[in-house]
Amino acid sequence: MLTLHIAPKTCALASLIALEESGLQFEVRGVDFASSEQRSPAYLAINPKGRVPALVTDRGVLTETPAILAYVAQITPGGRLAPLDDAFAFARMQAFNSYLCSTVHVAHAHSRRGARWSDDPAAIETMKAKVPQNMAECFRLIEEAMLAGPWVMGAAYSVADPYLFTVGGWLKGDGVDPALFPKVAEHRARMLERPAVKRALERAEA
Amino acid sequence: MLTLHIAPKTCALASLIALEESGLQFEVRGVDFASSEQRSPAYLAINPKGRVPALVTDRGVLTETPAILAYVAQITPGGRLAPLDDAFAFARMQAFNSYLCSTVHVAHAHSRRGARWSDDPAAIETMKAKVPQNMAECFRLIEEAMLAGPWVMGAAYSVADPYLFTVGGWLKGDGVDPALFPKVAEHRARMLERPAVKRALERAEA
Ligand SMILES: N[C@@H](CCC(=O)N[C@@H](CS)C(=O)NCC(=O)O)C(=O)O
Ligand SMILES: N[C@@H](CCC(=O)N[C@@H](CS)C(=O)NCC(=O)O)C(=O)O
Repeated sequence: MLTLHIAPKTCALASLIALEESGLQFEVRGVDFASSEQRSPAYLAINPKGRVPALVTDRGVLTETPAILAYVAQITPGGRLAPLDDAFAFARMQAFNSYLCSTVHVAHAHSRRGARWSDDPAAIETMKAKVPQNMAECFRLIEEAMLAGPWVMGAAYSVADPYLFTVGGWLKGDGVDPALFPKVAEHRARMLERPAVKRALERAEA
Repeated sequence: MLTLHIAPKTCALASLIALEESGLQFEVRGVDFASSEQRSPAYLAINPKGRVPALVTDRGVLTETPAILAYVAQITPGGRLAPLDDAFAFARMQAFNSYLCSTVHVAHAHSRRGARWSDDPAAIETMKAKVPQNMAECFRLIEEAMLAGPWVMGAAYSVADPYLFTVGGWLKGDGVDPALFPKVAEHRARMLERPAVKRALERAEA
């Protein structure tokens, strides 16, 4: 059995959508950030990093969105969620996911989690101030050089799509007008039509 | 033919070591950070992100360390550089690499590249001040919960090893005593004995 630990409005939504797309059986557990449950001893025993997502499997716990996404794709019958038989195409998908994880997600995190990188409240405010510019720069690159269309990798849907959908969902809250990026906006609309995305959004906010 | 674009003392060393271990044929090109070559039109045509590493292949360019590492492992004859036949073990390796990329490398980057996240020189100084604490926290987690030993994933060497070696090499410069983490230090010593690591270090600084 698979159990995915999530919290609303976080990057865990990407893994949740991927699991909904996969057809695999899984359970969802909410981690309550309001009461700092992510730092409770019980949750740290699952994920010592104190973050979501964490995917509990029969063999142990998996963390890190790009790793979970590639795993779900690899164990999905029929390999419909990644180009599993083409190492180059798989690597391109992984590069996209790694960019979201290491650069775009991190750019966004400076709006709410600046205390990770500075103890000075005034410095944290200056980080917040730069988030719109950094997020816009990242999405300009995605729009112009990375999103092949209609799906991230081109004709075939993959786990890169739920990840882009998830991170793109943060733009408005980060002070960036999503309409600046028409291909990303179209991608978002197309994602919202998928039954798996609808189910995931319902489960994520429940 | 494969061509890896690198710069000295960067995360590109991980991909360089992996290629040296792989037995694949490849060329190395240095990108001169002193003259900001990473932001030159010629280099941006290779990697529009303006970063290293970038691996040029016959089918196109790959970026992002975790993606390049998994790719090199997947195309290496005999699959000696990753658990390719075990999706769970492969995902654990990827989770390790993703943590280095999205959390540890990012913690380190706040020492030299704070201008990415704030325009205020005083704020950037406060980020620098917190780097030793953040790097030490990350390596405490690696030491206690992640590095199985003797190699990162246990008995078998994988591309997670050059990545840990590379990021661990930044500790001293970041104001953290590597001796605080004996398993990581032993891992480093073991890596330095490998001919591929010796060759990579020579090529990286050349
Ligand atoms: N690199 C990790 C990052 C995970 C992460 O930062 N998750 C955030 C939510 S988007 C979190 O759990 N934050 C809780 C906290 O910082 O206390 C991944 O991609 O999965
Ligand atoms: N997420 C990327 C990060 C690449 C990266 O930040 N590379 C640094 C060197 S360690 C770089 O090229 N910096 C040049 C710059 O910021 O101008 C990866 O893991 O490959």
